[in-house]
Amino acid sequence: MSATVRSGKLIGVGVGPGDPELMTVKATRALRQADVIAYFAKAGNPSHSRATIGQYLRAGIIELPLAYPVTTELPKCSAGYREALESFYARAAADIAGHIEAGRVVAVVCEGDPMFYGSYMHLHARLAPRFATEVIAGVTGMSGCWSAAAMPIAQGDDVFTVLPATLPESELVRRLAEADAAVVMKVGQHLAKLRRALARSGRLPRALYVERGTMAEEKMIPLAAKPDDDAPYFAVVLVPGWEHRPGAKPGTEPGAEPGTEPGGEP
Amino acid sequence: MSATVRSGKLIGVGVGPGDPELMTVKATRALRQADVIAYFAKAGNPSHSRATIGQYLRAGIIELPLAYPVTTELPKCSAGYREALESFYARAAADIAGHIEAGRVVAVVCEGDPMFYGSYMHLHARLAPRFATEVIAGVTGMSGCWSAAAMPIAQGDDVFTVLPATLPESELVRRLAEADAAVVMKVGQHLAKLRRALARSGRLPRALYVERGTMAEEKMIPLAAKPDDDAPYFAVVLVPGWEHRPGAKPGTEPGAEPGTEPGGEP
Repeated sequence: MSATVRSGKLIGVGVGPGDPELMTVKATRALRQADVIAYFAKAGNPSHSRATIGQYLRAGIIELPLAYPVTTELPKCSAGYREALESFYARAAADIAGHIEAGRVVAVVCEGDPMFYGSYMHLHARLAPRFATEVIAGVTGMSGCWSAAAMPIAQGDDVFTVLPATLPESELVRRLAEADAAVVMKVGQHLAKLRRALARSGRLPRALYVERGTMAEEKMIPLAAKPDDDAPYFAVVLVPGWEHRPGAKPGTEPGAEPGTEPGGEP
Repeated sequence: MSATVRSGKLIGVGVGPGDPELMTVKATRALRQADVIAYFAKAGNPSHSRATIGQYLRAGIIELPLAYPVTTELPKCSAGYREALESFYARAAADIAGHIEAGRVVAVVCEGDPMFYGSYMHLHARLAPRFATEVIAGVTGMSGCWSAAAMPIAQGDDVFTVLPATLPESELVRRLAEADAAVVMKVGQHLAKLRRALARSGRLPRALYVERGTMAEEKMIPLAAKPDDDAPYFAVVLVPGWEHRPGAKPGTEPGAEPGTEPGGEP
């Protein structure tokens, strides 16, 4: 230890969609410099984010696995489910707080981007009022999926929407019909309903089904060609916008606009 | 040169929101190995993406700047505007094709993520039918913005929407009211209208105005506290979802769910 007082800190580190090469330079540095790394996993399962970061960890780092409670027996709307998760996040936050109070830098590794549908946010909300924090943006899982598919997802004035497949079918139909481009997540047991909603909204012919984009086990297939409705929880369905792109519909190309990435240059 | 025949290729390289540290490991490697790097810029302006990648380029790499035509005099719906852009992208694609045909690997650097509202898509659509291509996902500009703000943007079953500020006010009101979380881009001259739409949809108190997230010139302010309606084209407005997060509204925390990043666990 140097004479400098090192103060503890919480860092939410986005590790991207799964391919370790899709971590940012900043994320790899944060992991090398952290005193403690914490990661989520389902009880009894290996952690995907832990697998992603393996090559970037220094020897001797303290590891803090955070095992989600088993809640498969509990309905998601039940008080028991809410309490199990609430007490899990409270305990995880307390464990991390102990390390920060001891002056350690704790990196919580997050699949995708920490602030976009990630478990890290539950810890951040509990710890940010008390401690210094930093958030390192990551490539989202959905970006990994459409890039692996080389699928232009949204362009120009497209409205882009992320929908959970848990919505009622009529809601899915309405929202899919109104969006130019969409990503549907949490597909799992909802694929048959989602398929009907895509057909009713006219989007089925464009829909692509993706599992584990950018990972070794990657699977992708046009949803219309997928012979069954079996899907894991983490599967996503991509519906690209930019309908008048060159080559999409010969003769309908209305001209092209400069890109409009938020924060970018036209 | 080795005896191996090296064949040309197009790579769309996402360089992230602006901070060079937020480039992926894969992107930095692709730039080091490319024969040619191409980047977009407004005529007479420096290229933001070129500035982001400077430290990762090897000496002697061929640079191919792609200068957008000046179209400020032309209405966006006019034939002249469409033709100017169409011929710009056709020429850019032809220049890149020449390098690929000569066996070179051409990396087109893209702010944010190449397939998400980016100019790269115009080149990809024209060149992918003829040449080998690869797309390297990047951190989007909007992820950079909400991470810099340490703002949890979407959680659980939130519906998340990206809207262009160019929409009519009534459309903005309706779509903002229906989304749990939203990012509005292309703010520029539309900020007064957007402010009214946010107020009418009840979202103004939560809205955050951001310019150049993650860059040295970063500016962020709650939109309700911004004293004027001046905004550059690339400014974004963030409206976070996850309304019942811990600390957001004491007493209304409905329990917390494990993260649901598409492609993530659990």
